[in-house]
Amino acid sequence: MHAPIDLADSVADVFARIRSRAPRVHCITNSVAQQYTANMLLAAGAVPSMTLSPDEIGAFVTGADALLVNLGTFDAERKSAIDVALASAAEHNVPWLLDPVFIERSPARAQFARDLIGRSPAVVRLNGAEFAALTGNEPKADAASRFAQSQATIVALTGATDVVADGQRRTEIGNGHALMSRVTAMGCAGSALVSAALAVETDAYVATVAALAAFGVAGEIAAHSAQGPGSFAFAIIDALHNLDRAEIRARLKAS
Amino acid sequence: MHAPIDLADSVADVFARIRSRAPRVHCITNSVAQQYTANMLLAAGAVPSMTLSPDEIGAFVTGADALLVNLGTFDAERKSAIDVALASAAEHNVPWLLDPVFIERSPARAQFARDLIGRSPAVVRLNGAEFAALTGNEPKADAASRFAQSQATIVALTGATDVVADGQRRTEIGNGHALMSRVTAMGCAGSALVSAALAVETDAYVATVAALAAFGVAGEIAAHSAQGPGSFAFAIIDALHNLDRAEIRARLKAS
Amino acid sequence: MHAPIDLADSVADVFARIRSRAPRVHCITNSVAQQYTANMLLAAGAVPSMTLSPDEIGAFVTGADALLVNLGTFDAERKSAIDVALASAAEHNVPWLLDPVFIERSPARAQFARDLIGRSPAVVRLNGAEFAALTGNEPKADAASRFAQSQATIVALTGATDVVADGQRRTEIGNGHALMSRVTAMGCAGSALVSAALAVETDAYVATVAALAAFGVAGEIAAHSAQGPGSFAFAIIDALHNLDRAEIRARLKAS
Repeated sequence: MHAPIDLADSVADVFARIRSRAPRVHCITNSVAQQYTANMLLAAGAVPSMTLSPDEIGAFVTGADALLVNLGTFDAERKSAIDVALASAAEHNVPWLLDPVFIERSPARAQFARDLIGRSPAVVRLNGAEFAALTGNEPKADAASRFAQSQATIVALTGATDVVADGQRRTEIGNGHALMSRVTAMGCAGSALVSAALAVETDAYVATVAALAAFGVAGEIAAHSAQGPGSFAFAIIDALHNLDRAEIRARLKAS
Repeated sequence: MHAPIDLADSVADVFARIRSRAPRVHCITNSVAQQYTANMLLAAGAVPSMTLSPDEIGAFVTGADALLVNLGTFDAERKSAIDVALASAAEHNVPWLLDPVFIERSPARAQFARDLIGRSPAVVRLNGAEFAALTGNEPKADAASRFAQSQATIVALTGATDVVADGQRRTEIGNGHALMSRVTAMGCAGSALVSAALAVETDAYVATVAALAAFGVAGEIAAHSAQGPGSFAFAIIDALHNLDRAEIRARLKAS
Repeated sequence: MHAPIDLADSVADVFARIRSRAPRVHCITNSVAQQYTANMLLAAGAVPSMTLSPDEIGAFVTGADALLVNLGTFDAERKSAIDVALASAAEHNVPWLLDPVFIERSPARAQFARDLIGRSPAVVRLNGAEFAALTGNEPKADAASRFAQSQATIVALTGATDVVADGQRRTEIGNGHALMSRVTAMGCAGSALVSAALAVETDAYVATVAALAAFGVAGEIAAHSAQGPGSFAFAIIDALHNLDRAEIRARLKAS
């Protein structure tokens, strides 16, 4: 399932725009993921910010080009920050992504995620267990398409194969490496990259495919030099920073 | 003081079980240590979770195979989380470890640690200064044994030589490397590994010896390739991920 | 603009003292920067602590040799911690540094920073955008000198060239590498190094020049071996840990 050259070019174009425009991505994310997420965004060429203070977050989101909402830390501070941030995003047309981390482990968190779906995320990125908790369906490509259509959003269902679906289109991406699941916050960082892509590509479906494909390609490159998950965690940041069109063309597996 | 082959095999067996069973380890730990702790657990094959929310932590601990309680961040949120988590751990027989970080610098924290000893931790892991603050005794092997016996727990007193003691048994472990003290949260990560071992080995004494010995061996291997504490921090994660029975047999220094 | 040997020796002397005295540096810093800051301080030979609890922070600051106040996370907990910490620092003559992160993005944060200037920081370290937000002036060397003189503090205005000014003296430092701006919390870590230098050098101007110069030299050394920002983040920690007098002499660009 090698991708046609035009898909590879589309991926490369999105990342070239991130580098040249340096979009601001505001991140409401969990305390474990903050540092790694910031470094992944900087490596791609984006400018992260992370504040959660209700006094400030409106100004940060208003000045941002995209917003990431990750539920991995689920505390009163973040719930309040999310509410203010989404109001600001709606007012200023800032695209936002929902990453409903670990909702299969906490009914309160799952309900909160379901409520957020009603506030029009551009993209929902989640793994199979989270998809099942959110939708009540098996984490399959068809179910992803149906959920995307019913909610008028884009679903990015990640795993050994990543599925990206809106109501009409669907792409399956075969890139990535098993070590990606051995580093904490790797999925969170992937969601942040999708957010950065949303900031520079108005077709949110194209942005999502581009970010996840590039992330998977970077993971494959990193695995070549890594000795284990410790060195891999930083090799993938290097690979993303250095990623070029030729590598994307050579490695992209999407259809 | 090379260890007999059966001790090396016991260490290797515990880590093989962590890899095959992928136990869930819930961590109440300080904000500096969260990311590194999660990555160390993932490298060993365990599945970390970190939530502190009072609404959720009961469900996370109920579903966990072991619990880590680290006092390195000592705020109202964590004090409340610890209380809920320990009630859940007691009800569901989830073994837990206490890591009383920096209690020698804060009388309030030391008193809180003393209160927690009464709630039956399977293991208390601490350094010499913390041991002195907790017990009022010099951090010596004999004092560790006496404290373990009086409190019906296991004491893991770490330093240049690690001492593991319950009321009857005592092991001294000579593995490790000086660079381990130049990386923040290294001791916290070691406590997390002991917690993961508690999840797969019912003899908590054996689990504790196994985790600290493997951690020290991984540190020695990492020091060979590291250029300083920055590269060492990730080389030890790689080494733990790749650790095999032959390396443990060749390097274990315990008696 | 190669530096005279006596400036290089002064830089090396400050770092030799950090290694031999292992000063305690208490850090009120943002959640993204905590781990990286702690690792940078440990690599230099200092002993970091990070607690924010109002019950404890007074005791930590009283026992510390320097204090870092970074505004990158601006929440109620940290505002209250800063107040207690500065009272303790004033009472016990603990030198402190202000790092007013991202004040150009938040008026509330900028006002808070202006208020803190009145509480006599030894040093204010900030980038050009933050300097403009704090002072209302263009981020130029002359303006840095004037602000330093008017506030009786030291200004460290960092960028492609770092400017250190008190009322009378000014040094420009040409060391550093572009990758330093691609790693989150790098500036925060630099401020922490200045704080460590304040702990061992009573002339705060000399301490500030030494810390920023050594940090820039370490960045240049790290860039030689790094493959991108991921490996650079840890190579600079290794380089700082291994930094010696000959390297400082060979590379220092300051006048």
